[in-house]
Amino acid sequence: MAEADTRDERLFPPDPTVRAITRELYAQVKDLPLVCPHGHVDPALLADDQPFPDPAELLVIPDHYVHRMLHSAGLSHGELGLTDLEGHQQETDSRQVWRRLCENWHLFRGTPSKLWLEMELADVFGIHTRLSAHTADDVFDTLLERLAQPDFRPRALFERFNIEALATTDDATDQLQHHRRIRESAWNGTVIPTFRPDKVLDPENPAFQDSLRQLSEVTGEDATTYQGYMSALRQRREYFKQLGATATDHGHPSAFTAELNDVDAEKLFRRVTEGTPDPADAELFRGHMLMQMAAMSLDDHLVMQLHPGSIRNHDPQLHTRYGADKGADIPGTIDYVNGLRPLLNRFGNEPSLRFVVSTLDETTYSRELAPLAGYYPAMLLGPAWWFFDSPHGIRRYRELVTETAGFFNTAGFNDDTRAFASIPVRHDVARRVDCGYLAQLVAEHRLELDEAHDTAHAMAYARAKEVYDL
Amino acid sequence: MAEADTRDERLFPPDPTVRAITRELYAQVKDLPLVCPHGHVDPALLADDQPFPDPAELLVIPDHYVHRMLHSAGLSHGELGLTDLEGHQQETDSRQVWRRLCENWHLFRGTPSKLWLEMELADVFGIHTRLSAHTADDVFDTLLERLAQPDFRPRALFERFNIEALATTDDATDQLQHHRRIRESAWNGTVIPTFRPDKVLDPENPAFQDSLRQLSEVTGEDATTYQGYMSALRQRREYFKQLGATATDHGHPSAFTAELNDVDAEKLFRRVTEGTPDPADAELFRGHMLMQMAAMSLDDHLVMQLHPGSIRNHDPQLHTRYGADKGADIPGTIDYVNGLRPLLNRFGNEPSLRFVVSTLDETTYSRELAPLAGYYPAMLLGPAWWFFDSPHGIRRYRELVTETAGFFNTAGFNDDTRAFASIPVRHDVARRVDCGYLAQLVAEHRLELDEAHDTAHAMAYARAKEVYDL
Amino acid sequence: MAEADTRDERLFPPDPTVRAITRELYAQVKDLPLVCPHGHVDPALLADDQPFPDPAELLVIPDHYVHRMLHSAGLSHGELGLTDLEGHQQETDSRQVWRRLCENWHLFRGTPSKLWLEMELADVFGIHTRLSAHTADDVFDTLLERLAQPDFRPRALFERFNIEALATTDDATDQLQHHRRIRESAWNGTVIPTFRPDKVLDPENPAFQDSLRQLSEVTGEDATTYQGYMSALRQRREYFKQLGATATDHGHPSAFTAELNDVDAEKLFRRVTEGTPDPADAELFRGHMLMQMAAMSLDDHLVMQLHPGSIRNHDPQLHTRYGADKGADIPGTIDYVNGLRPLLNRFGNEPSLRFVVSTLDETTYSRELAPLAGYYPAMLLGPAWWFFDSPHGIRRYRELVTETAGFFNTAGFNDDTRAFASIPVRHDVARRVDCGYLAQLVAEHRLELDEAHDTAHAMAYARAKEVYDL
Repeated sequence: MAEADTRDERLFPPDPTVRAITRELYAQVKDLPLVCPHGHVDPALLADDQPFPDPAELLVIPDHYVHRMLHSAGLSHGELGLTDLEGHQQETDSRQVWRRLCENWHLFRGTPSKLWLEMELADVFGIHTRLSAHTADDVFDTLLERLAQPDFRPRALFERFNIEALATTDDATDQLQHHRRIRESAWNGTVIPTFRPDKVLDPENPAFQDSLRQLSEVTGEDATTYQGYMSALRQRREYFKQLGATATDHGHPSAFTAELNDVDAEKLFRRVTEGTPDPADAELFRGHMLMQMAAMSLDDHLVMQLHPGSIRNHDPQLHTRYGADKGADIPGTIDYVNGLRPLLNRFGNEPSLRFVVSTLDETTYSRELAPLAGYYPAMLLGPAWWFFDSPHGIRRYRELVTETAGFFNTAGFNDDTRAFASIPVRHDVARRVDCGYLAQLVAEHRLELDEAHDTAHAMAYARAKEVYDL
Repeated sequence: MAEADTRDERLFPPDPTVRAITRELYAQVKDLPLVCPHGHVDPALLADDQPFPDPAELLVIPDHYVHRMLHSAGLSHGELGLTDLEGHQQETDSRQVWRRLCENWHLFRGTPSKLWLEMELADVFGIHTRLSAHTADDVFDTLLERLAQPDFRPRALFERFNIEALATTDDATDQLQHHRRIRESAWNGTVIPTFRPDKVLDPENPAFQDSLRQLSEVTGEDATTYQGYMSALRQRREYFKQLGATATDHGHPSAFTAELNDVDAEKLFRRVTEGTPDPADAELFRGHMLMQMAAMSLDDHLVMQLHPGSIRNHDPQLHTRYGADKGADIPGTIDYVNGLRPLLNRFGNEPSLRFVVSTLDETTYSRELAPLAGYYPAMLLGPAWWFFDSPHGIRRYRELVTETAGFFNTAGFNDDTRAFASIPVRHDVARRVDCGYLAQLVAEHRLELDEAHDTAHAMAYARAKEVYDL
Repeated sequence: MAEADTRDERLFPPDPTVRAITRELYAQVKDLPLVCPHGHVDPALLADDQPFPDPAELLVIPDHYVHRMLHSAGLSHGELGLTDLEGHQQETDSRQVWRRLCENWHLFRGTPSKLWLEMELADVFGIHTRLSAHTADDVFDTLLERLAQPDFRPRALFERFNIEALATTDDATDQLQHHRRIRESAWNGTVIPTFRPDKVLDPENPAFQDSLRQLSEVTGEDATTYQGYMSALRQRREYFKQLGATATDHGHPSAFTAELNDVDAEKLFRRVTEGTPDPADAELFRGHMLMQMAAMSLDDHLVMQLHPGSIRNHDPQLHTRYGADKGADIPGTIDYVNGLRPLLNRFGNEPSLRFVVSTLDETTYSRELAPLAGYYPAMLLGPAWWFFDSPHGIRRYRELVTETAGFFNTAGFNDDTRAFASIPVRHDVARRVDCGYLAQLVAEHRLELDEAHDTAHAMAYARAKEVYDL
């Protein structure tokens, strides 16, 4: 099979009947625009529109999937070019960093990182060479050359990628200057913020006290009182909406929610804002504030996203030296059925609320999440998340969720990525895997072909647009 | 492929080798009689043998799989024709209810409800039209016409379905009048009760106190004393046996069992029957009574079925307005390995006891249930239950259970349904999926074809008959 | 298809494309030598090199997979030829025991036991007859005849099996006389011990006190003091190393680890060694000692293996009469992400430590183990263990682990068996399933064929050799 054909059939199930149906379904969705309602691209990238500096800065250093795997084989974060919290970068030679990736390319066999990176090199940069110690320098040089061209600047790529809308993720206190600059520029790309208030909702977040102070500053409210705090949050949500936001996002350690009356809530607020909070109080406060966020979403119609269950900073050595979000967050078990009960009891039957829930504990797909989303009008399931945004992971998601919740209680795909240039391949992987799953249903006579076409279109494009008002 | 062929191959794995073996295996089991040892059909249906009123009353209103999905898309239970606890039915026009199903038919793509309903329309009613807003009225009219014919009355369908025996599920205090009427009628169908004593075993059941009073009334024992209570239970089991019962069924919130001496048991009985019970006491009492049920089964040879782990009435709004069993029961995690330990330690090695355990927590299949059933002579596994009685669900059950427990520590299929007309298609789905799984084992040279034939027959028919003495 | 062909394709995925690639991959690994870094073969077997007594003593009585299944169907351990703790063997006629297996052969359909035993009969003994009541005596006689031949003695089989190295599992206090005898013999087979100190690390082990006394005796240290105890453990590890050991093994009930200072550790040691230990103290001590074992491994470079999560002796009747390891150990849930945190925080970033972790709770593969092993340099995943060392089990392991941890954070295969004659077929099953998985990746264009060849070789052979220094 020729190279082009091989890539054409990537991730299609091997069975000839199923593959033929997959090919047909995929043909109708592969060129649809990309709707990106949840991700972590830095908006400065598109505000500045500067060239990406080099392959290591583009593909290795910011990608925790990549450097966590290299670290697991014994390479230090310093050797991989990361800059520590004191601003020191041990390895400043990007070519060396890139070589370390290429020399260890076998570590990535079977992972989505390999898939994404190979597809990205091929589809975005036109490089079909396999990475290895032998090819490292050539590929590095080719990439460098490409990155220097105007066609490979962020905005040019945004257009080439056919991105219809891109949501970033932003602190509640962020003034969204980069978003303002994009809006005020002549460029027409749709880039919108997402309201992520973790730092002001979680008393155990190291930045909690500072963030409350900033919250007061940016709103003019006194966020040291419960009333002022709540007003400030409402004001900030409105500010985000004015800059295009259609959603909030919440990265809590658990799915715990709690119903408190105003008096108890105010007392609790005082306790958690004065000194080091008791862990039980912190959890109660987070649970209470998720409830308040749902109440506010009912008012202002922002989609509410919950991403719970990551045990952050499992490795304190890494955290102390390099900070958060560097690949040492590990999933734990999570209880949605009891945790979400207060919130769903109060808001679950509200058809206008869109409460999108994700998980890092796959055991909850069939046991809790699909049964809940398949009942409550307000609840929807986010796509397979993080470690599970992968061919097997997406397939398991569909197999474990669909029979109970169907397709239309899911919220469509999002790429959830910090790696801007990987956006199209991430969508492409999901489209391919979803088409393969739908083709299986057709081959087993559970769906007719036209039903599969319609569903593929919804999962690849229409559903995310509809759920997130994009 | 012609319509008939398409249906012939439904749910068969697409691989040509595996599909050919599946076809051969399925041909030998597809027409076997239906053995139905566990289900929720109302016996009045077969006692009265009245025509089904209309499509909505037959296919939508009583089926919580169907209306939970429609509810998840924002349709209210009132719009779906449900009657509330005060006897009010908001939507009395069945045609409207039926239209709401048809207009939202896309929600069911990939679910077993779609499969069951389409197979039921085709196989039972001869309707091959796809449901949609456009076809709703035509299908409604055709169904109405069919339902008016004598061939579509319950007993005629029972015979057409080739049901060899049908077990219902009945409260411990039920006088089984409908079963008596069936037995006293000229009709020969085998319909038997199942002893389901949840309401008299669970102090937290709202009907507990009333049920104890009824228990005294129907037995003449004083069920307010522990001795009288135990005698009454024994007497009731005997009464159910006289009307053909071969099994009990227990729907506890957990798999907790406990060994108590008589003195402590009597004290506990007094505590839980006087006023609102302490939750720990309630759990202890349920655990103790499961133990007593096993002891009684050892005496009277009733098969003991345990269905734990459903968190009932997750939505209090639904429960308050429409009551229980309306689609808002959500699974939780469950601990069989420690929970069942007291019961298995005392009774697990009794070869004459048949203790059939099911789960809504699929993580326990390979971790706990298969290892337990693959060791203890008394323990057997019930089929994939509730949300997991579906093509992927049954397949996962076989893949996760068989390698440790084999096929013969499973108890055969049961349809577990309230929806009488769906009985044959539910058996058919299980037969198809089991044949597909066995065909895979043959294609991978793990089984010879004759072994697969024999196993398919056991899983489709012989095993349930043998385990439940039918 | 002829008999030989059938066996050639055993466990290969049925899809023609995938099967062809599997065949090609498997051809390159099927004859590689066997590296066996973890197992439970009695070293006396190879020290004595006596003929195996008979089929029941070889294939039924020592194999808890086999007699647990027969027990689940109601056969007593006495009928199956087991000898109780008082030395009484109820059934002394091996032919009767063998007949009971053959009469119940259908129970094993779909299990790895059937696969292993059929492959073993065919590949090791040249017997292609299917077991049944009808064939029991013939097969018994043929096996008896084979076992009497010199070619079927343990050392001859060891050589025929092409075993490059075989590790046994030995108590910390074992003087390793059988290993000494093997080393001192003229025979060249590599048989090495593994340091398994459970009995001296677990205060709740019934043999704890006795084992501490033995520890003092064999080392000359006073193991009733904490200092003496620690010195004795170090000395014993050194002794094991001198006889070739490259690893330790730890079978704890949980994955709990704990960081204690020396003063607290010494106090704890006193508490748990004086009388019946408090359960919390026992757990704390085990957790502390896992930490100490990791510290010692950092010094002496023994690979550290952890096999947690088995709830031992679930059936007290069996345990009282026949003792431990007789098939009634049942998996429970396990928390690696919090349990291992202290150990990984202290040692996880040590590239020279090899900490190999296994699980009986498959939910942890994708949620905890792959994310941990895919980050920490010290941590590796052991192969699919015990109930999951099976075709579906190994496949699930690869599908759930690979996308996050890749292949090279796994430690290669080990057979983990007490059943010496089953060693080659266990490796063969793993090789076949791994090749099938890799072939799927190739067919879906996730790997090139040469990458799959290299990976298959690593998983079948090179990786275990490298990780365990064999």
